[in-house]
Amino acid sequence: MKLSDLETPALILDRPRLAANIAAMSARMKDHGVDLRPHLKTAKSADVARLATAAHSGAITVSTLAEAAYFAGRGFRDITYAVGITPAKLARVAALCRDGVRMAVVTDSAVMAHEIGKTPDCGDGIGVFIKIDSGLGRAGISPDDAALIEIARALEDGPSATLRGVLTHAGHSYGCATIAEIETVAEAERQAVVGAAERLRNAGMACPEVSVGSSPTARFGRGFEGVTEVRPGVYMFQDAFQAGLGCCRLDDVALTVLASVIGHRRDLDMLLIDAGGLALSKDRSTESQTEDAGYGLVYDEACKQRLDGLRVSAVHQEHGLITSVDDNARVPFDALPIGARLRVIPNHACMTAAAYDRYHVVDGGDDIIAEWDRAIGW
Amino acid sequence: MKLSDLETPALILDRPRLAANIAAMSARMKDHGVDLRPHLKTAKSADVARLATAAHSGAITVSTLAEAAYFAGRGFRDITYAVGITPAKLARVAALCRDGVRMAVVTDSAVMAHEIGKTPDCGDGIGVFIKIDSGLGRAGISPDDAALIEIARALEDGPSATLRGVLTHAGHSYGCATIAEIETVAEAERQAVVGAAERLRNAGMACPEVSVGSSPTARFGRGFEGVTEVRPGVYMFQDAFQAGLGCCRLDDVALTVLASVIGHRRDLDMLLIDAGGLALSKDRSTESQTEDAGYGLVYDEACKQRLDGLRVSAVHQEHGLITSVDDNARVPFDALPIGARLRVIPNHACMTAAAYDRYHVVDGGDDIIAEWDRAIGW
Repeated sequence: MKLSDLETPALILDRPRLAANIAAMSARMKDHGVDLRPHLKTAKSADVARLATAAHSGAITVSTLAEAAYFAGRGFRDITYAVGITPAKLARVAALCRDGVRMAVVTDSAVMAHEIGKTPDCGDGIGVFIKIDSGLGRAGISPDDAALIEIARALEDGPSATLRGVLTHAGHSYGCATIAEIETVAEAERQAVVGAAERLRNAGMACPEVSVGSSPTARFGRGFEGVTEVRPGVYMFQDAFQAGLGCCRLDDVALTVLASVIGHRRDLDMLLIDAGGLALSKDRSTESQTEDAGYGLVYDEACKQRLDGLRVSAVHQEHGLITSVDDNARVPFDALPIGARLRVIPNHACMTAAAYDRYHVVDGGDDIIAEWDRAIGW
Repeated sequence: MKLSDLETPALILDRPRLAANIAAMSARMKDHGVDLRPHLKTAKSADVARLATAAHSGAITVSTLAEAAYFAGRGFRDITYAVGITPAKLARVAALCRDGVRMAVVTDSAVMAHEIGKTPDCGDGIGVFIKIDSGLGRAGISPDDAALIEIARALEDGPSATLRGVLTHAGHSYGCATIAEIETVAEAERQAVVGAAERLRNAGMACPEVSVGSSPTARFGRGFEGVTEVRPGVYMFQDAFQAGLGCCRLDDVALTVLASVIGHRRDLDMLLIDAGGLALSKDRSTESQTEDAGYGLVYDEACKQRLDGLRVSAVHQEHGLITSVDDNARVPFDALPIGARLRVIPNHACMTAAAYDRYHVVDGGDDIIAEWDRAIGW
């Protein structure tokens, strides 16, 4: 099967680019002597996870229990569910533990820590990471919060919980304007969890694991002393936002949407494609960057040649509207008749990929060399 | 099964509200003597479609060929695919025609009209609507464009195409600030297609069908003379955006997301829930309205009581961040421990529903009375 045989819109994954992105991050983590526990929230694919973990321990991170079950069913035996756990979700975690999966959850609440400890029928038990806020301002406690020791003690209340360590995610690295700023955020991320781990150890508790991770801080962090694992995710695919941030070049982006031209509006210098808000997502993360990618950057069908000056400037549910960014560029209507195909590099790979149940994998060329499934929903 | 038994996030559909929204639109169309061809791009559900078509001809509108195949497989025999067709998509349309479905496509291109006419193996043939732009500035030609007659003539080139009529979508009604403005847009929508139909008839061509439709213009249009069918979609569910526009009350909204509290940030007066950018979508359509709903408005688990002053102010992939909109409101942390459940009215029902493969249907209470599937993907 060829690219030209696919129905559109379709999600295309370029394997050589994927492999290169994975190899670069793997090599960096090896150089720093830390394990890579890749976050599969972006890829949600066992095929991608096998490539991403090949040079490492095989441990992975997930963002939903649907992902956890999907990966557990495909041979992954060491899974951290890195979104705050609730009492009602413990039964699904316990079921995975009974199946022999080394499961970990995260919490920033002593009440929940107590609940986790009481979880029935969970095999060898549930590992717990205490979530530390290293500056993002989302989940987690400050590393010097009195709750740190309180949560760790609450884990001792019940037989089902084991403190594995501390974990943070410096997602505010996405808001950095320069590489130097990312380096600073990465160092603060490291210090936050290393400091929290020290406090726990000084209180006489074991804190064997110290986990950090975001793609920008993993890419640019200058050192990982005291850290045991790193959990980046989007680096595998990259996207327009990561390119704008300086984490990759646009030519490194492995994930694109194949779309068809469905209309010409020469009077408005506007091309319509069949990839809209559902196929690309309504993510607008590049809005604050130097180059606002709109809802995506436009390439030829082979994804070799960027159509300079064009972007997907608006999306409706099933319509993408491509216009010129500057006055000198014009939409090349004659080269793009109705039915012509384009590739779009999305703003945010995680959001875009979520609309699809599979990848069509290419080897940099026109052949579809594989179809890889994805874990969707919750 | 009860609401409290569901894993979160989950998509909840309130059947009494759905039925009331459907009944109101049905009655309005009956009063105006026009057929309702509901757009199923929002609901993507055969169960919803059966309710929405019960008082009408049974005809429906869809936004993808995956929807067309889904509905055709569930007994719907008159389907208009209302997004611009491409040559490569005609084979799937032809397959539905061969199965006895009365299929229609839309085009605004004489080249495509010619292509449609040559479609092989398409049973009784493919119906075609010429797309008219009544002011949205997306697909379609102006009603006085010379291309109108040209496209109609091109349809006569081949044996497979039959001109069914003209069709428009006044999606710019979503940008109206007042009901009076919506009425004006509705009248312009009507005049655009009625005028185009007259031009075709004056040129000696049959133009039996004249199709308009958007939920706001269907709700507030003062007259539909010359129109044969109306194609609203989101009115079945409604959402925060439609409420902001004046098309419904918030208490009419039938579609909500059930979410669980996963974290407290008392220091930031912020509550974290497990419905983020994937579960709610990143749609920000209410940003321009008088009440900016953020990424959604917050209700209690039963969706009876709004938590005044709160909204989902930010979303990350699997995290929703609920904060106070005004200085007088505070997040009621003690009433909402980790694991407590909330309902969120989304900005834009079409975008939010797209992330789910099913509805959990409630009867206004706590019981899950049905599970309805959805057509996802393309």
